[in-house]
Amino acid sequence: MPITVALDAMSGDHGPTTVVPAALRVLANLSDVRLVLVGDESHLRATLSKYSSHDMERLDIQHASESVEMDDLPSQALRRKKDSSMRVACDLVQNGTAGACVSAGNTGALMAIARFVLKTLPGIDRPAIISALPTMTGYTHLLDLGANVDCTPRQLFEFAVMGAVLAQAVHNTRYPTVGLLNIGEEEIKGNEDVKEAAKLLAGSNLNYIGFVEGDDIYAGTADVIVCNGFVGNVALKTSEGVAKMISHFIRAEFKRNALTKILGVVAMPVLAALRTRI
Amino acid sequence: MPITVALDAMSGDHGPTTVVPAALRVLANLSDVRLVLVGDESHLRATLSKYSSHDMERLDIQHASESVEMDDLPSQALRRKKDSSMRVACDLVQNGTAGACVSAGNTGALMAIARFVLKTLPGIDRPAIISALPTMTGYTHLLDLGANVDCTPRQLFEFAVMGAVLAQAVHNTRYPTVGLLNIGEEEIKGNEDVKEAAKLLAGSNLNYIGFVEGDDIYAGTADVIVCNGFVGNVALKTSEGVAKMISHFIRAEFKRNALTKILGVVAMPVLAALRTRI
Repeated sequence: MPITVALDAMSGDHGPTTVVPAALRVLANLSDVRLVLVGDESHLRATLSKYSSHDMERLDIQHASESVEMDDLPSQALRRKKDSSMRVACDLVQNGTAGACVSAGNTGALMAIARFVLKTLPGIDRPAIISALPTMTGYTHLLDLGANVDCTPRQLFEFAVMGAVLAQAVHNTRYPTVGLLNIGEEEIKGNEDVKEAAKLLAGSNLNYIGFVEGDDIYAGTADVIVCNGFVGNVALKTSEGVAKMISHFIRAEFKRNALTKILGVVAMPVLAALRTRI
Repeated sequence: MPITVALDAMSGDHGPTTVVPAALRVLANLSDVRLVLVGDESHLRATLSKYSSHDMERLDIQHASESVEMDDLPSQALRRKKDSSMRVACDLVQNGTAGACVSAGNTGALMAIARFVLKTLPGIDRPAIISALPTMTGYTHLLDLGANVDCTPRQLFEFAVMGAVLAQAVHNTRYPTVGLLNIGEEEIKGNEDVKEAAKLLAGSNLNYIGFVEGDDIYAGTADVIVCNGFVGNVALKTSEGVAKMISHFIRAEFKRNALTKILGVVAMPVLAALRTRI
């Protein structure tokens, strides 16, 4: 079944320069997808004219006169920019023209606009931000990553439901395992919200496996790990910090250590020489 | 000025097998330190007899008939094991025999016993767990790492004071910078506790630099970073998880990739051959 996706073409750090070629690549790879590029029509037509594509008949343009900037306050983006590319992309989902919308822009603004225009599903109080993080064996879907600084036990439970549905739909994980992020695996550990959420999860139909700890995120212990947005955001940013530091040290070591430096320079010719001798 | 340290010799994953040789190494390296090994006297004498040392006159043994196990509940360790090596080591600080005590045992039990026996300093409500984490340029002292799942703004402020004192005393950092862990650097970000703590810190004599994010822990943005024990514990364990995953991938890549494998095997002899030619 063909699906139509609305693409906010103006937002994000690079705007149409990145979104337009990405859209054409999607169309080339997925023949059952139609795209609607949302943004300044003349700007988009000018950018599109630089590319040749056989898939233009599956590409539409929807004009929007404004853009949400990365430093706009969510409340202002919602109230004052009613013809922003982000807002119009959400409107296209709301009126049934598109089945989904994608934006690389201001996360807070997107959350506020999407919640206002599209509402949440019945039984779901708050939207959450999720990401599929790499593990030693596949992916862990971690949520919330910062949309909700404080969460009730019921909201944590709802995040678990949404995370499990997404893991199943996107990564084809059957009956995905769900863990609740805590600071120990014993039932007595953690704060009251986490303990209450654990009870809700244990009494649900979800494949709940209990409390997990920070290192479980990258061990692949659970397909879905749930936490409040404050904790999730700290976990995500801390991970980025560790990865950055390790790559910094590895690069520094390559520069510092004469042996590894020489190895780097001589490795290829030496290996080639070795081969010809053998 | 000589200092006496009480060492809980029985606790931890390895007990006297690790603690005794470590103690002897401390004495050999620090001539102004006296140690009191606390634990089962005959066990400790038997372990000591395997080593020769010139520093035995700076080593005392204090008998304690019990040990706190890693899975003992803190409340039970406190109430039922009044002659544990951990408790006796704390008692030695309380009665002035030792200036400090060190234990590698059950963290929760140590917190409970230390708080009961030694109390906290005037103006400090709760103890906290701190660690000096490596950064690209030195160390960040992160606290609390799990002693207090929920913290009031006032407690976060007290942690900042303790962290700053420790960074100054242990790492000789003059007027250490203090950051408050949050999910954004803007003043409007974060939960109410963090916002209130920020006001207390801004009005104090500490070298407070404002909100920092998870990736700042390893960037060396601040000498001391403060958060509640839930967030700190997740940040610490998540870091361990990332580091473990990265080293797993690097090892796997070395095994998988024929080129790096060959390079590993031939690197040294090839380099030696190259040298003799030059």
